[in-house]
Amino acid sequence: MGDLVKKIAVLGSTGSIGRQTLEVVRAFPDHFRIIALAAGNNTSLLAEQVNEFKSKIVFFEGDKTPLDKMGLDYKFLPLEDIACHPDIDIVVAGTSGKVGLKATLSAAKAGKKIALANKESMVMTGEIITAEARRNNAVILPVDSEHSAIWQCLRGETAPERLILTASGGPFKGYSISELEKVTAEQALKHPTWFMGTKITIDSATLMNKGLEIIEACWFFDMPIDKISVVIHPQSIIHSMVEFADGSIKAQLSYPDMRLPIQYALTYPERLSNENFSKINWNDMKDFTFEKPDYNSFPCLKLAIEAARQGGTYPAALCAADEAAVGLFLKNKIGFMDISRLIKQALDEHESVTNPSLDNILEIDIRVRERVLQMAGTNS
Amino acid sequence: MGDLVKKIAVLGSTGSIGRQTLEVVRAFPDHFRIIALAAGNNTSLLAEQVNEFKSKIVFFEGDKTPLDKMGLDYKFLPLEDIACHPDIDIVVAGTSGKVGLKATLSAAKAGKKIALANKESMVMTGEIITAEARRNNAVILPVDSEHSAIWQCLRGETAPERLILTASGGPFKGYSISELEKVTAEQALKHPTWFMGTKITIDSATLMNKGLEIIEACWFFDMPIDKISVVIHPQSIIHSMVEFADGSIKAQLSYPDMRLPIQYALTYPERLSNENFSKINWNDMKDFTFEKPDYNSFPCLKLAIEAARQGGTYPAALCAADEAAVGLFLKNKIGFMDISRLIKQALDEHESVTNPSLDNILEIDIRVRERVLQMAGTNS
Repeated sequence: MGDLVKKIAVLGSTGSIGRQTLEVVRAFPDHFRIIALAAGNNTSLLAEQVNEFKSKIVFFEGDKTPLDKMGLDYKFLPLEDIACHPDIDIVVAGTSGKVGLKATLSAAKAGKKIALANKESMVMTGEIITAEARRNNAVILPVDSEHSAIWQCLRGETAPERLILTASGGPFKGYSISELEKVTAEQALKHPTWFMGTKITIDSATLMNKGLEIIEACWFFDMPIDKISVVIHPQSIIHSMVEFADGSIKAQLSYPDMRLPIQYALTYPERLSNENFSKINWNDMKDFTFEKPDYNSFPCLKLAIEAARQGGTYPAALCAADEAAVGLFLKNKIGFMDISRLIKQALDEHESVTNPSLDNILEIDIRVRERVLQMAGTNS
Repeated sequence: MGDLVKKIAVLGSTGSIGRQTLEVVRAFPDHFRIIALAAGNNTSLLAEQVNEFKSKIVFFEGDKTPLDKMGLDYKFLPLEDIACHPDIDIVVAGTSGKVGLKATLSAAKAGKKIALANKESMVMTGEIITAEARRNNAVILPVDSEHSAIWQCLRGETAPERLILTASGGPFKGYSISELEKVTAEQALKHPTWFMGTKITIDSATLMNKGLEIIEACWFFDMPIDKISVVIHPQSIIHSMVEFADGSIKAQLSYPDMRLPIQYALTYPERLSNENFSKINWNDMKDFTFEKPDYNSFPCLKLAIEAARQGGTYPAALCAADEAAVGLFLKNKIGFMDISRLIKQALDEHESVTNPSLDNILEIDIRVRERVLQMAGTNS
């Protein structure tokens, strides 16, 4: 195989995306080699991963004892140095939150292929990252199932007219505002279809997740916000669709399994048969249903669309406000509907910066988070 | 526009496909020019079409009085000469039955683009036509909604693993065999979703239409019969799907409207916005349902799959037997379930020819039809 082997860095290797990326890599030892692994605090899992995949380069924030115990031979490098390391072809940006921002930018500047699962990168700094990628011939490959679906539907096509993101509707689909006021973090964390982290699970329940995906889609596919729609499709089989100039629509379908879009990003333009994936059995297929999103019960969706329309640093402010508000909700300090209220307040008073630098955005991120905590009358 | 205008011949211009082709052409006067029109007996409609589109070349089988009355200036040419005429870029093969066979072959030999709606061409002579097309750089473009859907889903892709043809299930979906025994031609002709000719409408009711489409799909997309499945999807919004090596499925969707696949074949690789097409409104979308085909009540589907598996001249025999049997059913000479019985008998006694010539096939066609009439105890 020699040079055909793709050399991979997994940023956030102990998280949901990271672990599933390693599952894909494990299935194709002749196609991929793990060069670098980066994680936060779960260093015992990281040590196992480094040992299994013989990763030469490692980054971690937590205790190094588990790595020492296994007697692993590795080189420690900061996240940003890993992202632009010359030995690496594909950077899987699987960290959540803004920790991945600088690393993603570093990978873009180094002209890497970036399999991007880090929503915040595109939402907060889409303009900067896509510009850097263009300048340095970096390629940003979507890993989210929705964006992967759109990317697959666009393959070989030239005239997309509308992107249609599907949404499961989350665990509280059909709830009234007064019912949602009483919803707890515990209830929200029982998401029906996907296995994900806690922040993204709450975002799925508020539909902010879909809102962030709309903003990402603008940058990924260079589409204006008004050419992107959302359709509720609770079965989560159609992962998204593209409508073309002639009205023809293409949809991508599969059982919900994040490993499929991850694998597609890693193997693109090839597609490889993976025996771990369940193929759709049409004889057992349940009905597909479609609904309009309820913008009243789920105002986060509208806030995200509005932030995208305003542009500038509104999406960054949205993202920061959401992260702070969701944090408060997870600690039971605010109610479910307060999440959107706080975000709305934060956006109402936001003063947008045009053509922001990364530093502008990071500054806004800190300021908006603090402001949200302040508005909520809490400081944790 | 000059040389960018595509010059078109419409074979079967007064039939369903032909009229809808002209509707598409009418919407884009800068993109298409009608050079030739060919029809059977509806010469008054043909005269109107020749007059409107200023077609220079004409073929017809019926009375020429309507054309004379309008004082039209045209050159009469046989169908096969039109199909290979140097002034023509795209031949729309919209005739039904075997009348289009020789013309399609003539177009393939002349290296034309062939927008193929004539099922019999591919089912009876798929091997010959695809070989001629390959030899002469002719391109065969599907016009059927199902094959167009597959073609669209394959765009830019390289690893199709399975083709999934959708079927409405026809007007008798859910009927038992004993109920089907009593079904009349009149009932069968009330097809719910598509506007089509009578023969194809009966084929839709028996599911032979889907069977013929499976055989066509083998030739269009160079796929073995066992990699093609059928799923009943009564809403007829998903027109067909392709499953790839990684298990990812792409589907093409639109409201049922034959003009869309016709336009796609004519404009390919471009897609043009056509204000006459209704775009899908997801807010009004009904549920999509999926069912397994009932091979017992609709044995034609199984007969077609079996004929494809056997290869040789079995598909041609199937086609001929079907045309004869459907003719008898339309004249109320046999019952609905007799259609498949007669076809089965004809196939059981068929002696296949390997690497058949067109003459072999035409001979088989005549012989099998006669045999079906004979078996039915009738000779009309």
